[in-house]
Amino acid sequence: MTLKLFAMAASFRLASFNKKLLTVAVGMARAAGAEVDHADFREFEMPLYDADLQASSGLPKGALELIRRTEAVDGLLIASPEYNYSLPGTLKNAIDWVSRSRPMPTRGKSAFLMAASNGRYGGIRGLWQLRIPLEGIGILVYPDMFALSEAGAAFAEDGSLKDPLVTERLQKMMEGYLRAARALSQQGP
Amino acid sequence: MTLKLFAMAASFRLASFNKKLLTVAVGMARAAGAEVDHADFREFEMPLYDADLQASSGLPKGALELIRRTEAVDGLLIASPEYNYSLPGTLKNAIDWVSRSRPMPTRGKSAFLMAASNGRYGGIRGLWQLRIPLEGIGILVYPDMFALSEAGAAFAEDGSLKDPLVTERLQKMMEGYLRAARALSQQGP
Amino acid sequence: MTLKLFAMAASFRLASFNKKLLTVAVGMARAAGAEVDHADFREFEMPLYDADLQASSGLPKGALELIRRTEAVDGLLIASPEYNYSLPGTLKNAIDWVSRSRPMPTRGKSAFLMAASNGRYGGIRGLWQLRIPLEGIGILVYPDMFALSEAGAAFAEDGSLKDPLVTERLQKMMEGYLRAARALSQQGP
Amino acid sequence: MTLKLFAMAASFRLASFNKKLLTVAVGMARAAGAEVDHADFREFEMPLYDADLQASSGLPKGALELIRRTEAVDGLLIASPEYNYSLPGTLKNAIDWVSRSRPMPTRGKSAFLMAASNGRYGGIRGLWQLRIPLEGIGILVYPDMFALSEAGAAFAEDGSLKDPLVTERLQKMMEGYLRAARALSQQGP
Repeated sequence: MTLKLFAMAASFRLASFNKKLLTVAVGMARAAGAEVDHADFREFEMPLYDADLQASSGLPKGALELIRRTEAVDGLLIASPEYNYSLPGTLKNAIDWVSRSRPMPTRGKSAFLMAASNGRYGGIRGLWQLRIPLEGIGILVYPDMFALSEAGAAFAEDGSLKDPLVTERLQKMMEGYLRAARALSQQGP
Repeated sequence: MTLKLFAMAASFRLASFNKKLLTVAVGMARAAGAEVDHADFREFEMPLYDADLQASSGLPKGALELIRRTEAVDGLLIASPEYNYSLPGTLKNAIDWVSRSRPMPTRGKSAFLMAASNGRYGGIRGLWQLRIPLEGIGILVYPDMFALSEAGAAFAEDGSLKDPLVTERLQKMMEGYLRAARALSQQGP
Repeated sequence: MTLKLFAMAASFRLASFNKKLLTVAVGMARAAGAEVDHADFREFEMPLYDADLQASSGLPKGALELIRRTEAVDGLLIASPEYNYSLPGTLKNAIDWVSRSRPMPTRGKSAFLMAASNGRYGGIRGLWQLRIPLEGIGILVYPDMFALSEAGAAFAEDGSLKDPLVTERLQKMMEGYLRAARALSQQGP
Repeated sequence: MTLKLFAMAASFRLASFNKKLLTVAVGMARAAGAEVDHADFREFEMPLYDADLQASSGLPKGALELIRRTEAVDGLLIASPEYNYSLPGTLKNAIDWVSRSRPMPTRGKSAFLMAASNGRYGGIRGLWQLRIPLEGIGILVYPDMFALSEAGAAFAEDGSLKDPLVTERLQKMMEGYLRAARALSQQGP
């Protein structure tokens, strides 16, 4: 059975390093036989979470679309910038809306997390904070995470990663994740 | 010198438990001689953070107003719900916008954190995640934090906390924080 | 194939609530067909971690034994008290020793985490901190975690949990974990 | 009044980078007029925490000595390695013993945290985990933290930091911390 993945970078920037990194990862997943829904964060426009708004109008269209797309897959590839040593408010806001759906659409899915930044740390601290709400909504987050530092100089013109050692590190992590995701997607009832 | 505080509950709900809890804390701070700017989160309307939007249009009005109001004080009283074991995306989004201002308007301020929820844990796990971005933007977050569990049954009709032991626990923490905040507000150059 | 688990409570106390809770969980896992190595933390006596000691004498006997026993299984059941809002230093010390072994004996294993305490929070905050080093050494930690609050009154004389709803909650989590652990233990190469 | 500090590197290694970094920081603090008790972690030998041992024999000598020394100061300078993305078990073990003393000897103290490692991240992830138990035992942990990456090449033969920009960054943080620590040490009752 084909492994189905949903891939999204949690950035609205057109020139986002996280989008570039995600594109590389999506290529690797497809080359390994996975079917990937490569989404853009802008497809899921939604307001700031407001419990009163939810009570009066239900979940917004963007959240419903994000729920529909994640329900359709086995696992998630998420590339996320780090803002203030934590995950972006924008991504947390999307998680907060999605988590209000019942049954929880994310339970039993797996996820692989990546980050890219132009700094020394590559956004790794943000990913450790991102794990928490994802695990809170029932997602099995793969232990290894990929952080790309000095991202401004990391990509070739064709979008690939210039450094073959960095490419290999990502490739190995992706292989490990894809193995785990495939196994988890075939859990018994 | 009078200690100046900014107080806000990170909830848009009209009937928010966190707003109620904050009101009790604001009363205590005022009774102890502090001057409190008791704000409503809705006063600071802002879009989801978008670096391209910032580049083209600067900081949004709501963020600028929040920056102005926090710059004017020595410390912050924040009551925040917990969403998915972490801080609300809405509050993180506000932090992400504010953190883009230079010089960082929050550096050297202190903060006291509270949470209320109708569950057993009172939102304490979210506060531990909230500390991180606040400390990341240079705020001295007071070590003790107040979590009010079973908040649905905790308030009397006049808005006070029914249980005198809970009131006393909050009062003692507030006194400790106000002492530290006063001392910190008188730091030498 | 039979699922093999290693189970340990991270407490030296004879009357440890975590030991009692672990015993209940081990019973459930065995009833579901798993083969469980039910260990006692005292079996793995080791000194405080010291890189110079490691350089001169290698890994201590207790660490080597813990490595051998975890290498032999597919997954781990860990019950851990919370000390100072984090994992016990004793357990972290064991992780620090074990993590020095090459190849990393824990990579690709799964784990289910539990905690018991006599307080309101049941040790859940410590488990969130425990996840971090476990994931750091390559363990797929199951997202749901079980926290038993007011543990002093929770157990019947025969060691079972008095409250059938609490038993059922643990049973459901264990079933979910065992399904995931079985799937992960059958990953392809 | 002279500010009194206790300084310790949480490493037993003779050639510890954290000890070297701490020595630089202690020099800066003394130059700024603070009185510093520069301790060695080995002075506080203690067993792995065991509640039964505590019940039968009380706190061990090493813990009592650490308590006595921290009680005597206004603030702490701690340099700590990162093990497995968290604080060392050895340091957590010391915190666990100290936290059993009543009244809590650490309440109302301040702390400044540093880390050094030979890797890219400088141990910063461990410091974020170290904050949690320190704040849990009532310590006001200064928001800025200093992480020294590539520490193997960072020190000159006389023990100073080779890079003047790195020295300046540490100097500025220390000044900020010392100002806050002085203010906090003069809190009213």
